[in-house]
Amino acid sequence: MRDQALNFAATRQAAQLDELKELLSIPSVSAQPQHKGDIARAAQWLADHLGAIGMQRAQVMPTSGHPVVYSEWLGAGKDKPTVLIYGHYDVQPEDPLDLWQSDPFKPEVRGQNLYARGASDDKGQLFTHVKAVEAYLKSSGKLPVNCKFIIEGEEEVGSPSLDPFIEANRQLLAADAALISDGSMPRSDLPALTYGLRGICYMQVQVTGPKRDLHSGSFGGAVYNPIQALSEIIAGLKDAHGHIAIPGFYDGVRSIDDEERRSLSEAPFDEATFRDEAGVSSTWGEEGYSVLEQICARPTLECNGIWGGYTAEGSKTVLPSSASAKISMRLVHDQDPHEIAELFRAHVMRVAPPQVQVTVRNLHGGKPGMVDRNLPVMQSAAVALERAFGRRPVFLREGGSIPVVSTLKSVLGIPTVLMGLGLPDDNLHSPNEKLYLPNLYRGIQASIHFMDEWSRIQ
Amino acid sequence: MRDQALNFAATRQAAQLDELKELLSIPSVSAQPQHKGDIARAAQWLADHLGAIGMQRAQVMPTSGHPVVYSEWLGAGKDKPTVLIYGHYDVQPEDPLDLWQSDPFKPEVRGQNLYARGASDDKGQLFTHVKAVEAYLKSSGKLPVNCKFIIEGEEEVGSPSLDPFIEANRQLLAADAALISDGSMPRSDLPALTYGLRGICYMQVQVTGPKRDLHSGSFGGAVYNPIQALSEIIAGLKDAHGHIAIPGFYDGVRSIDDEERRSLSEAPFDEATFRDEAGVSSTWGEEGYSVLEQICARPTLECNGIWGGYTAEGSKTVLPSSASAKISMRLVHDQDPHEIAELFRAHVMRVAPPQVQVTVRNLHGGKPGMVDRNLPVMQSAAVALERAFGRRPVFLREGGSIPVVSTLKSVLGIPTVLMGLGLPDDNLHSPNEKLYLPNLYRGIQASIHFMDEWSRIQ
Repeated sequence: MRDQALNFAATRQAAQLDELKELLSIPSVSAQPQHKGDIARAAQWLADHLGAIGMQRAQVMPTSGHPVVYSEWLGAGKDKPTVLIYGHYDVQPEDPLDLWQSDPFKPEVRGQNLYARGASDDKGQLFTHVKAVEAYLKSSGKLPVNCKFIIEGEEEVGSPSLDPFIEANRQLLAADAALISDGSMPRSDLPALTYGLRGICYMQVQVTGPKRDLHSGSFGGAVYNPIQALSEIIAGLKDAHGHIAIPGFYDGVRSIDDEERRSLSEAPFDEATFRDEAGVSSTWGEEGYSVLEQICARPTLECNGIWGGYTAEGSKTVLPSSASAKISMRLVHDQDPHEIAELFRAHVMRVAPPQVQVTVRNLHGGKPGMVDRNLPVMQSAAVALERAFGRRPVFLREGGSIPVVSTLKSVLGIPTVLMGLGLPDDNLHSPNEKLYLPNLYRGIQASIHFMDEWSRIQ
Repeated sequence: MRDQALNFAATRQAAQLDELKELLSIPSVSAQPQHKGDIARAAQWLADHLGAIGMQRAQVMPTSGHPVVYSEWLGAGKDKPTVLIYGHYDVQPEDPLDLWQSDPFKPEVRGQNLYARGASDDKGQLFTHVKAVEAYLKSSGKLPVNCKFIIEGEEEVGSPSLDPFIEANRQLLAADAALISDGSMPRSDLPALTYGLRGICYMQVQVTGPKRDLHSGSFGGAVYNPIQALSEIIAGLKDAHGHIAIPGFYDGVRSIDDEERRSLSEAPFDEATFRDEAGVSSTWGEEGYSVLEQICARPTLECNGIWGGYTAEGSKTVLPSSASAKISMRLVHDQDPHEIAELFRAHVMRVAPPQVQVTVRNLHGGKPGMVDRNLPVMQSAAVALERAFGRRPVFLREGGSIPVVSTLKSVLGIPTVLMGLGLPDDNLHSPNEKLYLPNLYRGIQASIHFMDEWSRIQ
């Protein structure tokens, strides 16, 4: 049965690529209201596709935001485990458009890569499991394990509707473990399983000074400039040693222990490669920690965007009415996103000059998550990756955040296997996002092996 | 002859308004390349109009940038003085468009005000002199003084072509004094003559970190964020006492002497009114100076715009490749814009963190300017304003910058009469720019009286 599935998948690579291109052509950008129709189209496309490959109850389920796609196949029997495969069909905004070499929503293969927004994050990675399931169902009419898909459309905007959806559908979603491919492996020849993820707390700050834009010649010098105030607030969020200066911020952070240091040292991390990928000549971060610790084991704070005043070509002598910034923090250990949001808010309000008004909004948040590496389901995933990629995976902690992992643990009580199939140079959230095509095909193999392996252990 | 002109002007108010509306309907935004055709149209409209009212040699003269409109009438004789009337037909960009109550380029009268971009700055103010000249020429066939118009199209972008144009046309532009209406009076019942203007130095700073936008989860914490670096640079441009922290910045600034303090105290300045116009509950500025001193007699530094990273709706977890800001300084006394630009550049380069690259561009500059209040031409202007507005004008220093004043002095050797006819609430450079219509009509009267008065004194 496994070998039939592997054979089926191996002979269908052209079709797999074409279908993925079809999905990638739908600009399902969740952050922008003008793409609401595209979000609906992408959800329907997936539901139709899951039905067509033999999954049951395939449907688009409404939420208070963008809908969730659900489907299931439960014919493996009660003695077999159930895997809940999570993915997301929404994508990041494509801007800045002028830096794309090809249209972000006209997928294009160049060399061994498929370029499109969502190619890696997450449509392409999700697709490996869809195609593994298809391979089993089309070649043998069944799967070795029971299987459910939950595919959301709000991951890139912080999944505001997902937690309520999971809580409202505990029975429907009941499973033994979740499987998510929405991350990366260190190199194309080195698969990985991620057992640690950082949480996130995403804030927006608006500083308002004068009630309207003023002439800087007539009013400048006597009115607190909102850009100045915002810059001072941001400059004060970190001290000269790279520590985050928000009082209480580090209260939930544990020091890095020997076990953590050892597991981090397993990761094949090279600072020169990191600098090269980032395109910087030197790194900078919190003093007292290595680069790998800075991006994986320590909390961080980054400005994601800033705007205010005149930003077009040429010069306009305006003293703007307001200035705004988007600022997000990655959280570790016991840092709670709601508490961090409140600490952030209180700090910003305290340091803001009294001549301006400041509003602080919490755009979204997610808790940090950890998974036990010794669980049978993790071991099955490790064997599956070894079979597909020819090499035993490393176990990683990752800098990014997948808040659903903590929800799956707290609401459904299940662990999550994080089988990242992207590569570090996939340009996630950037122009020229791509998927390394051999990872698509090996990912399908890995997923086929995973279901087979896990059905044997149980 | 004067009275015929006053009568002619008084009977033509409807036509004056219609013609001004026609000029205001041309969106001659000098900062934006897409308006190049509108710039040409506005210049041609003015040349045609000046020819139609009886001015001679009316023509559009090319420069390396936007063209200059020139015309002259020299029939008053060699024993009469020549006035060079300067104005500008270009306007500021109209953004933010959504805050306009009516289309910025569809002039609309509401109450006693005419709303349009350029209504006050400077098409409306310039128009008072055009209509005064028309009134003389149409009623008597001559002017009491010789008159030349020089109307440029780059004032709102720092007049890059104007100095070369004036230098290349010294003979053509030769005059005894210049007259400019491109400023304001304190109240509609209180005319003013401005004898001091600040200079300007307008800079743009770009901070570049990583070579592309990065995922803040994968790279954040170990890469210097350009928004952070830019914020730190801006926050460091002023100290806690509001002093500008650029070494050498104050070298060309003289302390405020008794004469200056006395003349400032003549201005009918009220801090509560200032706060109300600015829409702030409290002012903020350089310690040790009054608000009026801060905006008129001291140099200032203001951020005019800032941008970088993701600025649209929602949240995007990007660590941006670059961030930029527009920053301008108003200069006084002996501060030279080129020297200040170099001091600014050197300071920013010195304080920028070594992990980022910084480029600093000087967008434009202009020297501070002062005019002797006791000159006959200034006294003629004072009498003219008193006749038109029924009250003797106050003599003011102004926070804004009209670099042409220093060029007219240094290249042509002539003083400039600054007869501001706008009001403080004209919303210059802001949405809902307007002209108080009684000032249009009184401005025409003042210009008629000025030419008459000056012709007698000489």
